[in-house]
Amino acid sequence: MYKLTVSDCGVCCSDGFFADGISAGLKANSALDMAFIYSDAPCDVASVFTTNKMAAAPIKHFKAKGDFQTNFVLINSKNANAMTGSAGIDDIDEVMQNFSDKLNPVMSSTGVIGVRLPKEKIIAGTKLFDITQKNPHNAARAIMTTDSFSKECAYKVELDDGSSFNIGAMAKGAGMINPAMATMLCFITTDADVNATEMQKVLDEVTKTTFNAASVDGDTSTNDTVMVLANKKSGTYDKEAFAEALHKIMRFLAREMVRDGEGATKLVTYNVTGAKDERQAEIAAKALSDSLLVKTALYGEDPNWGRIASTIGASGVDSNEMTLKISFDDVCVYDKGEVFFDAAMETKAAEVMKKESFTIHCDLGIANGSFEAFGCDLGYKYVEINADYRT
Amino acid sequence: MYKLTVSDCGVCCSDGFFADGISAGLKANSALDMAFIYSDAPCDVASVFTTNKMAAAPIKHFKAKGDFQTNFVLINSKNANAMTGSAGIDDIDEVMQNFSDKLNPVMSSTGVIGVRLPKEKIIAGTKLFDITQKNPHNAARAIMTTDSFSKECAYKVELDDGSSFNIGAMAKGAGMINPAMATMLCFITTDADVNATEMQKVLDEVTKTTFNAASVDGDTSTNDTVMVLANKKSGTYDKEAFAEALHKIMRFLAREMVRDGEGATKLVTYNVTGAKDERQAEIAAKALSDSLLVKTALYGEDPNWGRIASTIGASGVDSNEMTLKISFDDVCVYDKGEVFFDAAMETKAAEVMKKESFTIHCDLGIANGSFEAFGCDLGYKYVEINADYRT
Repeated sequence: MYKLTVSDCGVCCSDGFFADGISAGLKANSALDMAFIYSDAPCDVASVFTTNKMAAAPIKHFKAKGDFQTNFVLINSKNANAMTGSAGIDDIDEVMQNFSDKLNPVMSSTGVIGVRLPKEKIIAGTKLFDITQKNPHNAARAIMTTDSFSKECAYKVELDDGSSFNIGAMAKGAGMINPAMATMLCFITTDADVNATEMQKVLDEVTKTTFNAASVDGDTSTNDTVMVLANKKSGTYDKEAFAEALHKIMRFLAREMVRDGEGATKLVTYNVTGAKDERQAEIAAKALSDSLLVKTALYGEDPNWGRIASTIGASGVDSNEMTLKISFDDVCVYDKGEVFFDAAMETKAAEVMKKESFTIHCDLGIANGSFEAFGCDLGYKYVEINADYRT
Repeated sequence: MYKLTVSDCGVCCSDGFFADGISAGLKANSALDMAFIYSDAPCDVASVFTTNKMAAAPIKHFKAKGDFQTNFVLINSKNANAMTGSAGIDDIDEVMQNFSDKLNPVMSSTGVIGVRLPKEKIIAGTKLFDITQKNPHNAARAIMTTDSFSKECAYKVELDDGSSFNIGAMAKGAGMINPAMATMLCFITTDADVNATEMQKVLDEVTKTTFNAASVDGDTSTNDTVMVLANKKSGTYDKEAFAEALHKIMRFLAREMVRDGEGATKLVTYNVTGAKDERQAEIAAKALSDSLLVKTALYGEDPNWGRIASTIGASGVDSNEMTLKISFDDVCVYDKGEVFFDAAMETKAAEVMKKESFTIHCDLGIANGSFEAFGCDLGYKYVEINADYRT
């Protein structure tokens, strides 16, 4: 057995990790726009990147390294360094040449696509870093783009033998978020004594039901990155405890990203059960979280279950109207062609939809496959944010 | 050779076809809400229906008939008769029992999902039909739901031997429109001397590059129907001429539906070339027409080509930034990592985007696969229409 306790220090919760955010003038009004995470001991790394074929320069740069340890992550917002060709990779090399030999940096970027990195500003920004600082909240704010709040989560894990380790994270993401990863960055630090191979296995497993179950707009960005850094300083590890803490952190952050979905007013969990298998449940759940008609009905607080049924049917998974059951939290609105909406049910369901967070249960009634996806509504604000993002 | 001439009489352009629209009180304010198409000779039928697993009652009713001829199509708007189980099918049978033995009717419905058909109103409505009327424009208006204009198209086809036939259509559709068919109904009438088998083959082929290339919101409805009725009265037929006329009609109507996309201000053609094969070109073109980030950039008239590149990359088709070329009409905005956006290009591209209709060309530079898809922008009005459709 083990015990998890929430802590408040984000990516600095582990011994030996430092972080801060500064303003390098990439964003207007001196907003924080560059962050670092530094470890005073070398770290093993596990990572998950976008599946987008137009993966950004920092991802290509990272992947070209092969197996390695790092002690420094440089992150900038406002510019994604994506679709910048080989020049984009050269830019990263040039930035890195300015670091001391003691640092073995990796870089991560988020922001506008197709614009070269403002190297001079970034190099000047790195001179402002003070690697003795533990300001995780500044770092979390510096990596934001259209996010309206910063996203952090950390746990202390106490094992039965009296030993303990820490695991903490920061993430950004509000738009271009989709079930196959997102315009999202997530950095997780830990002093658990875990190697890269083991950590990668746990990360891959946890990603499926957390970040890959979250959707704001069904668009998969060029820069999506989840990175876990382990400096092993605690000298202890327990796989089950580590996996649970990582799952809690990543599920929390995935839901925070959806809650902060551009213009979103509601966080909705789509709980699909009774599917032919887990894969079909996942397809149906993600079809629901991506459907414009479902998302706009959520925004309108309109318990229009017909759109939910139609979206499941359109997703192509095994389903039919005589076995389907749909509920909003515990209010059943459709049951196998026997229970239909009436005025009283509609009122109750509309009440559920006024909540900031609720669950839509869809039991396909076919077999035992299940999956849970996270989505949000789509309102005027999403259009406002995205119709004119670059200006 | 043959000659096609536009005519103005929609589904009544062929000898022996009659149509009208009436108000049965399904919609408010005495708006037209029921239509018929009648032929004084029996018709062979070809049809394409939704792939949605929750196909509506009228579609199940139609499919249960097997091979048959019809001389009467009854259409209602405002109620889709979908998710209504076996009761929904019984309702259709009951409505049809009220018709004279001389009519062999089929039924088609569009509107809200999950509400039983208001049988009494519909039966009373059928008593108002006058099958000697040729009012195709009324019929086209009666089948509208969120459409802001009615959609009709007709051609006279003159063959070299002096014979001729006619082919005319009406369609509805503005939302729940997607590449795998749409909340759309389309009825096409012809006096060409063509049998059901031949007609079905031509229809299937033409559907791929017309209605199935059109997307408003990526949602596939429960009621999508394209039906072609041939009463053979012209006594003549030419396959090539028929296929071309059908393609012209269906392409025109598909684009009209997108142009009338809920809240749309722009009709955009996505012309993807240079893909590995036609299927990959189709995947990329449809990913573009469905991307929320691309659609909102269109609405904002923001030539944000990064979102286009990212969407192609996210679609999973073979692509990479060093072979990709993107143009807005003839303004190239990205060319293989060499040409990037500059201020002058941005101004020119923004000019193109102010047009009501333009083409985004994406040459993937891999091989020779190509596909053309039709899409629209997404603005505040889409949210307004869909957040509160039922009230």
